[in-house]
Amino acid sequence: MSAQTASGKALRLGIAGLGTVGIGVVKIVQRHAEMLEARTGRPVVITAVSARDRSKNRDADLSEYAWETDPVALATRDDVDVFVELMGGHEGAAKDAMLAALKAGKDVVTANKALLAHHGQALAELAETEGRVIRFEAAVAGGIPVIKTLTEGLAGNRLRRVMGVMNGTCNYILTRMEDAGLPYDVVFEEANQLGYLEADPNLDVGGIDAGHKLAILASIAFGTKVAFDHVQLEGIGRISIDDIRRASDMGYKIKLLGVAQMTGRGLEQRMTPCLVPASSPLGQLTGGTNMVVLEGDSVGQIVLRGAGAGEGPTASAVMGDVLDIARGLRLATFGQPATTLEEAQPAVSAAPAAYYLRLNLMDKPGALAKVAAVLGEAGISISRMRQYGHADTAAPVLIVTHKTTRDAIDLAVGNFLPTGVVEGDAIAIRIEEL
Amino acid sequence: MSAQTASGKALRLGIAGLGTVGIGVVKIVQRHAEMLEARTGRPVVITAVSARDRSKNRDADLSEYAWETDPVALATRDDVDVFVELMGGHEGAAKDAMLAALKAGKDVVTANKALLAHHGQALAELAETEGRVIRFEAAVAGGIPVIKTLTEGLAGNRLRRVMGVMNGTCNYILTRMEDAGLPYDVVFEEANQLGYLEADPNLDVGGIDAGHKLAILASIAFGTKVAFDHVQLEGIGRISIDDIRRASDMGYKIKLLGVAQMTGRGLEQRMTPCLVPASSPLGQLTGGTNMVVLEGDSVGQIVLRGAGAGEGPTASAVMGDVLDIARGLRLATFGQPATTLEEAQPAVSAAPAAYYLRLNLMDKPGALAKVAAVLGEAGISISRMRQYGHADTAAPVLIVTHKTTRDAIDLAVGNFLPTGVVEGDAIAIRIEEL
Repeated sequence: MSAQTASGKALRLGIAGLGTVGIGVVKIVQRHAEMLEARTGRPVVITAVSARDRSKNRDADLSEYAWETDPVALATRDDVDVFVELMGGHEGAAKDAMLAALKAGKDVVTANKALLAHHGQALAELAETEGRVIRFEAAVAGGIPVIKTLTEGLAGNRLRRVMGVMNGTCNYILTRMEDAGLPYDVVFEEANQLGYLEADPNLDVGGIDAGHKLAILASIAFGTKVAFDHVQLEGIGRISIDDIRRASDMGYKIKLLGVAQMTGRGLEQRMTPCLVPASSPLGQLTGGTNMVVLEGDSVGQIVLRGAGAGEGPTASAVMGDVLDIARGLRLATFGQPATTLEEAQPAVSAAPAAYYLRLNLMDKPGALAKVAAVLGEAGISISRMRQYGHADTAAPVLIVTHKTTRDAIDLAVGNFLPTGVVEGDAIAIRIEEL
Repeated sequence: MSAQTASGKALRLGIAGLGTVGIGVVKIVQRHAEMLEARTGRPVVITAVSARDRSKNRDADLSEYAWETDPVALATRDDVDVFVELMGGHEGAAKDAMLAALKAGKDVVTANKALLAHHGQALAELAETEGRVIRFEAAVAGGIPVIKTLTEGLAGNRLRRVMGVMNGTCNYILTRMEDAGLPYDVVFEEANQLGYLEADPNLDVGGIDAGHKLAILASIAFGTKVAFDHVQLEGIGRISIDDIRRASDMGYKIKLLGVAQMTGRGLEQRMTPCLVPASSPLGQLTGGTNMVVLEGDSVGQIVLRGAGAGEGPTASAVMGDVLDIARGLRLATFGQPATTLEEAQPAVSAAPAAYYLRLNLMDKPGALAKVAAVLGEAGISISRMRQYGHADTAAPVLIVTHKTTRDAIDLAVGNFLPTGVVEGDAIAIRIEEL
């Protein structure tokens, strides 16, 4: 086979979904037609588009393209080689159209993390049966080519751990809370006003969106079937400005951090708030930027940083996939045949860690001793403990533990209330040494 | 074409050069045989190896492989599909063997930046004629998959600028000077003792090695023929510990920074010491780690960070290329057919910048005024100026200019000596805002 076997024949795209990303893709195809042809050896053109509302005013000239109201009709058109799915949603139209596209012999490029997290295995198997590819660089970490890096660049490595800050909205909120000294609720409302939040904000602040991304990365990294249901999810809603300040005092930042690693007990996947060293690349990440850290047995640690969302970056990722297809680069969805992916054995927080605990201690004699006793009974030893202020009723106590398990922490947190000296639920945040 | 068209037939490697990287590749192939086959759909095997000294004790079992004394013989063996060139050097054996391999219908994987920087165009044209591929991820920034990211992941972008710290030894020396407060000569000798320096240390500290890498990246980014001869090179040998400290006082770090950008006047390529903001990802880079910054019109800024050298990281990059070939992913050497690459028009430091100047001012009346006059005549305005100490003979003066051109700076530096108040040559370091 010769290099760049491209036939010179145009590669024809059908784009479903004309929101920010869809229009971004249209703009690149229009603006860079000559460059794209030079790089792939063939014209890359759009033949048809689809969206819910045709009359909407959009920031691109679509008059040259056929219009389909039904994405399934678009996906199966004879003049479409690649179905570009940018509608979103893990059921309904997006799924139907993608299935139809594969069955009709089309390759698929998508930015849909939810769909892949929920149905990735079935879709990959179908693609394989049909001899088509599904590419989804835009589904994880926006413009950062992390899928390509993991699947191809690091293919010679046994992956040890994959980590990342992959929801820009959460990182924006946490960074903004610290910089402006504002509480969570206020910054959440700010982010909402700025249009940073999904229609269902829990997708962002509950860690679900980032959890989808982590499950996809874990599948590629460890050769396992996507197992989103096994991702331990915890959002950022209970992080207080005081937690952020105290973490900072100790040389840490709080991030919504995804970690996937293969342990002796199985595959650990979690998307939870963590304390990370302030001086680490992840600790230094501010605002809406994303960062992914890939650790392989030969390469060591590779850090990738870039915009995690937005028209240009996400469209760039979509185009990377489109151009791979134009160049004849074809790869199994998760880097190896879907039928060879193993069932992941879930292991919840198998790797021990130190934890940051915050609890409200009532002003009663022997209160601190009771808390210490609960920890001791759970087998947790204390690295440092500090009581803030001394109010009439209750005052926050901050505890940093030595390395322990999540089970032990959960046990202790459950046993604080019955002591009668702790008010409300304790906060426990894992300290991730990088 | 179906996904991963791999035939199931073994991909057979012939490895020339059994130094650190060569042995690293052998180890990955041996240790991960099953994983590599799962990921590519075919066995990846080594059939023959070659090195200067067969009797040398090496950290891997080579007894199963045929031995060739002559790398050309290795490159043309019937049982070799991919010639893996890890000998180094831009003339002689490495070049001869690579040419022979391509002519014999073999694909080539190499870590040889010097060879590509000097003969990349001719090699790419030959590969094209022969229908073979040359891959060289390991030639730039060690384990960081920057060639793949630039050529494939960001292929939908018009690249604006490519930057990087791509010589770990230089970054080690500069970081160590600052941390330990040691002068250049002492740290240089330390690095030498630690084996960090090339046999010809000027390849490292003179910026040549990093310049090779920059020229390769520029070719891919801008669709131009590799033009190493046009890289403006300046080493780190004249950077003093005082320069580093004063830069630090102003919020900067000194890095040997490569910058390639397409300007209205042509292609600017420079590998020179620069001041970069201490808070930027490049400013925060310490020790031997590499970092590459890619800026595209859609994706914005992507930062990649990882080990720039060493057995594991470099072997990981070599294997990434090998596995691409095993998977049937084939690409033109510099991302588009070599015959379509344009001749680069060199532009020396076309983009204006502020500069840091250090000069030794003699203790004579009106000395500072004379220096200011020289700058004014060159059209350079001064942002700040500070005289350190007040010795009997001469004292260092530090000047930060407003934005100006390199031509103006060179003119002024040339005119300092004739004033009779400046001792020795002035140091001028560009301040790169990121």
